[in-house]
Amino acid sequence: MPLGEFGLIGRYFQCAALEQAGGHAKVALGIGDDAALLDPAPGCHWVISTDSLVQGVHFPDHYSPDDLGYRALAVAVSDLAAMAAAPLGFTLALTLPRVDELWLQGFSAGLAACAAEHRISLIGGDTTRGPLNIGVTVFGEVLQGRALRRSGARAGDLLCVGGPLGEGAAGLAVVLGQDLPATLTGSERDYLTSRFWRPRAQCELGAALAGVATAGLDISDGLLQDAGHLARASGLALHLRTTGLPHSPALQAWPAALQLDWMLRGGDDYVLLFTLPPEQAALLERWREQGWAVSVIGEAAVGEGVWLDQQPVGGADGYQHFKESTHD
Amino acid sequence: MPLGEFGLIGRYFQCAALEQAGGHAKVALGIGDDAALLDPAPGCHWVISTDSLVQGVHFPDHYSPDDLGYRALAVAVSDLAAMAAAPLGFTLALTLPRVDELWLQGFSAGLAACAAEHRISLIGGDTTRGPLNIGVTVFGEVLQGRALRRSGARAGDLLCVGGPLGEGAAGLAVVLGQDLPATLTGSERDYLTSRFWRPRAQCELGAALAGVATAGLDISDGLLQDAGHLARASGLALHLRTTGLPHSPALQAWPAALQLDWMLRGGDDYVLLFTLPPEQAALLERWREQGWAVSVIGEAAVGEGVWLDQQPVGGADGYQHFKESTHD
Repeated sequence: MPLGEFGLIGRYFQCAALEQAGGHAKVALGIGDDAALLDPAPGCHWVISTDSLVQGVHFPDHYSPDDLGYRALAVAVSDLAAMAAAPLGFTLALTLPRVDELWLQGFSAGLAACAAEHRISLIGGDTTRGPLNIGVTVFGEVLQGRALRRSGARAGDLLCVGGPLGEGAAGLAVVLGQDLPATLTGSERDYLTSRFWRPRAQCELGAALAGVATAGLDISDGLLQDAGHLARASGLALHLRTTGLPHSPALQAWPAALQLDWMLRGGDDYVLLFTLPPEQAALLERWREQGWAVSVIGEAAVGEGVWLDQQPVGGADGYQHFKESTHD
Repeated sequence: MPLGEFGLIGRYFQCAALEQAGGHAKVALGIGDDAALLDPAPGCHWVISTDSLVQGVHFPDHYSPDDLGYRALAVAVSDLAAMAAAPLGFTLALTLPRVDELWLQGFSAGLAACAAEHRISLIGGDTTRGPLNIGVTVFGEVLQGRALRRSGARAGDLLCVGGPLGEGAAGLAVVLGQDLPATLTGSERDYLTSRFWRPRAQCELGAALAGVATAGLDISDGLLQDAGHLARASGLALHLRTTGLPHSPALQAWPAALQLDWMLRGGDDYVLLFTLPPEQAALLERWREQGWAVSVIGEAAVGEGVWLDQQPVGGADGYQHFKESTHD
């Protein structure tokens, strides 16, 4: 792959590449050739996911490049967590309108911070001139037979989430400064801003789910829509209870109805949604002791679709790109 | 990864995914979950390369979506060929200004045609609304120790190319309709148009070079610039002879000086440039019998830089993005 014309990748992103490369004997060849080489562990699947971020669609026009760099990698790593995979490396395809040194320094610093948290190496990239577009492809590994797919849930399984819901949507409202309630405190504002810009991909929880949970994914489009994906892929119904949903104290300044709407339909939470056989329920307590805010929000049953308080809600009730299109 | 909002990936790209998936037992899980799963062969490196294509930079404003789909994948696969890797799969991150069914049908058909030629499967993707941007990440495998890197050339090695030079640049001139000579024939025009839009990644030649050539890459930025990459990475000088360069009969309608400039500095040729120990020279004849238009254009020597007819030419003498930038 081109290595970043004018050495952009080499000049600005070495911190994400080299500091981490030492931690990964599996990166046999990183930035600097036509392609990167990774060495797989025996008996593992390779896990691959790709995402692109576009200004005005995935992030607002006003942002800090540092936050954007962190977020671009974090949302991609979340897909690895959702497969119960251990993150290994990533590539960056960066389209930029111009070479802006301050922007690149900030963006690469945020990217490197997220890479360091997940011990993941930048192994290659491509930079191009054009409207801002950030493409991240992430690579991980998982033992064969242990990947956490969307299919596999069984009737009777507990439906669980890995953390509070609605913080991504509330974070976006704070970032956009939309009708913020007067009672919102400074610390709530800071916390929610950070939840939007610096989501924490739940890789440790994902790894703990490998071979235990029957199905799972990460909530990026909103609880109801992502539950719909899981229900369809597993060929069963998911029954949720409003009273079981994990509330975030950071949302308390908003009206209760808006809080609930964000919890059900807000995107960008990046917490895991998974099904657990009832005989494994004791694990939930152990995980909570480890600091993971897991909770049971419903159960899987024979049937189809997503049900909230015994009412069908459909599965496509969340955030979608191309929303003005008539093609759905 | 999101599977293409509104099922775009599933609706338009199944032909690239499913038809090929049957040929690859190594794709354990393709489109439809948070990530794809690939199963590595024992003793292989995984080879990964990413590229993005932007309108007005990598392709002109007037194009056929079918050609664009072919080209987007072909240029990425060429990076696998340049590592002597066997192609396995790819992901597509597609940013589109709107959902245009005709465009998507054409683009996916071209993509599928290139995928079929290389027996490579689409394993996942992401579609987003925004200015047109095409990100392709390709995956392949190569036996450990057999990857064709840019480093590794030794003084005395023969410098070789895998086909005629300058056809990519001439093809672009034809595509743009720039000052075309009156003597250009219809068949030359068709051939060169095809060379620009449908470059043939030299995967078979790359595989034949594994364990034989000492270094190699694909010529995407122009012979002199790419030779500079190889010289630097290998820590030696490359001496080229003008008389040794493989001429393309399709360029004969243009002035000789322009032909030479395209051969030396034109981009988009996507033929392999590699170094071969002199004791392996007999292979060249065998490869030519197989139909690969390989030729010797110079040799590696102690020293540094790229030399043409005993004059130093530097290594950065070719096409670059961000060309109006002052940051180089």
